[in-house]
Amino acid sequence: MTVQPLSSEAIAALAADLPAWSVVEGKLCRELRFADFSEAFGFMARVALAAESMGHHPEWSNVWNRVTIALTTHDCGGISALDGELARRIDRILG
Amino acid sequence: MTVQPLSSEAIAALAADLPAWSVVEGKLCRELRFADFSEAFGFMARVALAAESMGHHPEWSNVWNRVTIALTTHDCGGISALDGELARRIDRILG
Amino acid sequence: MTVQPLSSEAIAALAADLPAWSVVEGKLCRELRFADFSEAFGFMARVALAAESMGHHPEWSNVWNRVTIALTTHDCGGISALDGELARRIDRILG
Amino acid sequence: MTVQPLSSEAIAALAADLPAWSVVEGKLCRELRFADFSEAFGFMARVALAAESMGHHPEWSNVWNRVTIALTTHDCGGISALDGELARRIDRILG
Repeated sequence: MTVQPLSSEAIAALAADLPAWSVVEGKLCRELRFADFSEAFGFMARVALAAESMGHHPEWSNVWNRVTIALTTHDCGGISALDGELARRIDRILG
Repeated sequence: MTVQPLSSEAIAALAADLPAWSVVEGKLCRELRFADFSEAFGFMARVALAAESMGHHPEWSNVWNRVTIALTTHDCGGISALDGELARRIDRILG
Repeated sequence: MTVQPLSSEAIAALAADLPAWSVVEGKLCRELRFADFSEAFGFMARVALAAESMGHHPEWSNVWNRVTIALTTHDCGGISALDGELARRIDRILG
Repeated sequence: MTVQPLSSEAIAALAADLPAWSVVEGKLCRELRFADFSEAFGFMARVALAAESMGHHPEWSNVWNRVTIALTTHDCGGISALDGELARRIDRILG
């Protein structure tokens, strides 16, 4: 299956639909802050499950209670529908 | 450090202080049900962090959205203060 | 998709193909022992990823360095091809 | 307990003792590449356990099979003995 990058109109619509995310340098990004490392890592474990299930993985970093996520689709060189779907799953994990 | 088993009076006091837990066959037990496997495993990752930090680990099992935990202190052949502390940390993870 | 239980002949063939596993009370079972809790939990995190990806989850328990896994397919009341596939993935994780 | 930053001589000795790590902009750094996301995340789960046990956490990022770790001690504004200890534990996880 070939993944297509979204058009700039489609990315704008996606961003409007995902208010906690922003588009930065061609990636769909969200920064999160938790109570402590335990809460951050419990979240990361759940994101790992979602990502592996989709076969689509985030670029992400963590320092103690902070997690930064950047979603892009390397195969197509831009933001694809897969990134929108993973962002939605991450939002659902956050409840 | 030698860990002492709690007296039956101390275990009764502990159980009274931890209403979600019950004492079954010399173990402090709690059964949990989550929305799905993801939520259950995110919780398990956090319990793993707490347990490893304490150097005191649960007997636990998981089937999809269910997690069963039994706490006992093998070194002393019964419930010790460590089990009470781990139970309290687990309760705090559950919020 | 309906999952069918394997015939007893197919289960025998599966068990022959998976020498580290045994069939106990209608479940495909394996017991593992690791160096410590850290190694056991690192393994469990990887099994969690495999299981969630398949949408097929183990019955499993852990006590410190020991992990016990029992695979069965609740929807069909027996061992199915999904259990064989998850067992193979677990064997690959173990290297 | 106050954590002291290591002197430049002590950092040089630490780096000599940890050949897989390099000192970059005042942080002790290591880049790792695994077979896939599963292997990378299994490793991360084990590092999380070690970090939480020490009460000392890494700055780290992951993209599929790659994990980048930077160790520094925020409380003292530099590399401390805690970073050396966490680096050693990470090396032991890698076997």
